[in-house]
Amino acid sequence: MPSINTANQTAVERMMSARPILRTVARARDVVPGLRDNLILHAGPPIEWPRMSGPLRGAVIGALLYEGLARDEAQAVAMVEAGEVEFAPCHHHQTVGPMAGVTSASMMVYVLDNVTHGNQAYSNLNEGYGKVLRYGAYAPEVLAKLRWMNEAMGPLLADALALSEGIDIRALLAEALHMGDEGHNRNKAGSLLFLKHLAPLVARAAHDQTVASDVLRFLGDNALSVLNPVMAACKAMADAAHGVEGSTLVSTMARNGTDFGIRVSGLGDRWFTAPAQVPDGLYFSGFSSADANPDIGDSTITETAGIGAFAMAAAPAIVTFVSGSPRDALNATLEMYEITLAEHQHFTIPALDFRGTPVGIDIRAVVELGITPRVNTGIAHKQAGVGQVGAGLVRPPMAVFEQALLAYAEVYEL
Amino acid sequence: MPSINTANQTAVERMMSARPILRTVARARDVVPGLRDNLILHAGPPIEWPRMSGPLRGAVIGALLYEGLARDEAQAVAMVEAGEVEFAPCHHHQTVGPMAGVTSASMMVYVLDNVTHGNQAYSNLNEGYGKVLRYGAYAPEVLAKLRWMNEAMGPLLADALALSEGIDIRALLAEALHMGDEGHNRNKAGSLLFLKHLAPLVARAAHDQTVASDVLRFLGDNALSVLNPVMAACKAMADAAHGVEGSTLVSTMARNGTDFGIRVSGLGDRWFTAPAQVPDGLYFSGFSSADANPDIGDSTITETAGIGAFAMAAAPAIVTFVSGSPRDALNATLEMYEITLAEHQHFTIPALDFRGTPVGIDIRAVVELGITPRVNTGIAHKQAGVGQVGAGLVRPPMAVFEQALLAYAEVYEL
Repeated sequence: MPSINTANQTAVERMMSARPILRTVARARDVVPGLRDNLILHAGPPIEWPRMSGPLRGAVIGALLYEGLARDEAQAVAMVEAGEVEFAPCHHHQTVGPMAGVTSASMMVYVLDNVTHGNQAYSNLNEGYGKVLRYGAYAPEVLAKLRWMNEAMGPLLADALALSEGIDIRALLAEALHMGDEGHNRNKAGSLLFLKHLAPLVARAAHDQTVASDVLRFLGDNALSVLNPVMAACKAMADAAHGVEGSTLVSTMARNGTDFGIRVSGLGDRWFTAPAQVPDGLYFSGFSSADANPDIGDSTITETAGIGAFAMAAAPAIVTFVSGSPRDALNATLEMYEITLAEHQHFTIPALDFRGTPVGIDIRAVVELGITPRVNTGIAHKQAGVGQVGAGLVRPPMAVFEQALLAYAEVYEL
Repeated sequence: MPSINTANQTAVERMMSARPILRTVARARDVVPGLRDNLILHAGPPIEWPRMSGPLRGAVIGALLYEGLARDEAQAVAMVEAGEVEFAPCHHHQTVGPMAGVTSASMMVYVLDNVTHGNQAYSNLNEGYGKVLRYGAYAPEVLAKLRWMNEAMGPLLADALALSEGIDIRALLAEALHMGDEGHNRNKAGSLLFLKHLAPLVARAAHDQTVASDVLRFLGDNALSVLNPVMAACKAMADAAHGVEGSTLVSTMARNGTDFGIRVSGLGDRWFTAPAQVPDGLYFSGFSSADANPDIGDSTITETAGIGAFAMAAAPAIVTFVSGSPRDALNATLEMYEITLAEHQHFTIPALDFRGTPVGIDIRAVVELGITPRVNTGIAHKQAGVGQVGAGLVRPPMAVFEQALLAYAEVYEL
């Protein structure tokens, strides 16, 4: 067996050299491996209904209503309790989703192709602000917006992308990091770069000028438009780094609103989980940490791939949203160099003299130094359907890294 | 008479409180005050043909060909030498233009309305990269592109803007400064924000999908798309600050490729000029400072209004283009606080803990401290039609500030 360091070098090189191209938008049932009509994908590690938090339950109910599998909340809950609905992590199906991450068969997903290693990854369409499924809302207007996104916007984006060679999301991210984004909570520049690629294609592909105009407004006004393709790109990078024998690199970090889970490149598909924590941050007017759900979402795939809070030094303006000072943002990145295996070859930070972002979390360094990864995140209300109540910073529980390191010692007989 | 400090406070407050809204795009002859068919507007202080530099001469020839006033270069030059063409600075007609700045009657211009003080400002449409009139090129493809811009793109933008309330360029700039722009040489984020506003309007207003698609691609691919409306916005701000009795605030800085000129708020329309210098910077492959024309263009209106090199601390990535390190970019802004009257209320810099940009150059401080304003700029080849050869940093000659201070002492009998 190669040394741990050699294995880690292989893993992190695979992560950095992955080059995910956004190819199209397609119906999840047609492209996501293993997806079927009674299977609901969710964020984070595996979880069943009894332990699901409010926002995840709300999103599951919303998906069953959206799919027409249930006609109201009561029937949806009854179906779930009767065992007629199956659940699985998005991560088990090459998919990632922000917050609740709920993805069902009729929803459209972004399809990304890692042209370096040949693997694919998927993510649903971003709903923008207000009452949205990803925060557990399922009111009629939430479902109406989902219907417009999936029946009007999605097909137009597919037609538009068919006129192009696809969009290189790694290149887009590299540019966005030079424009004040960190790629997780701040995707303002990335979303505009995304719009820049799509706008001429949409104008050309459109069958209806009103739909084209509405789609371009929706994409442009939503500073998170590109978050989902970015997450899928990071998933493609992380999956490329997974399964390297002997590697201690973290290839998944994800939360389901109850548990925070990680997976490790050299430890197969096993999850290491512990209770998710409530983020520290800035709350919207009228809300406080008493309203907050524990940490939720697959969006920690960004930090897993070396952006998000790891690239916060690139995004000083983010502190107006997640709290802290520009100096704190700088320090967040500097601290993450302590627990990572490399400096990114493609993602650089102008304010640090174009130093590469810290990439490839090493569970050994996390446990030895007592430094857990930093994560930027949105904060969900703990009750289904209320929505976002703030944004802030959180760290995974140390326990998951300790468990992983123990498991590593057992598996590799150290 | 109020004290100098009171006058300066009035002037700089007027500069900061100006709020220029982009209203429409219109034919210059229909909107620019005093423009007529044989009058060519140019960048910088007044200059006549014999003293014009290569790129300005080239742009003048190009405008005469574009207008159909001459059929070839020889006839254009003959017309000029026969005195059949008049010249005036853009600045004398509420107009600004990058590089040669040549604006003639048939060209479309952005129309901005300062809703705080009621004055208007104008700027031509940005041509993007390659062989362009603003660098003195006038080959057939240059004129063909001008024709497309003025006959296809301009009218579509006018129709699109008519569907909106206009675009608040001050708000756009404030956001762009949080996204790594400084608003003069780096307008990547601002141009994408501009596209974000325009794309849904263009899609709705379009009569032809191919034209709409081409316009959206042209605007999106040109990271200087918004430079011209930004310059017009800065002109509207600077004009609002001009004419305050007793004020030593610089209300114009502009270069015609031969002379650098300034005007001062309390000294009326008098220009103070001295020879323009060759910028220091990075040259494109195959070129050196031996190829460079002296400093040219009205784009120093950005520094005059407190952005551009004055906001360079917001744009660390710009050093890949103009030379230097991110630390130099920070220091450029810090130095400019020494010679300015205020910190901008609307333009802030995240990396400096959201401090306002230095705004309102005081000729007294420039002369007393021996610190001239910093300017970011493109560099033109000294021969007409070659185009851009680099980008870099330049400072105005100290002599113009010394002349202005002497004139101030005479006028105000100090």
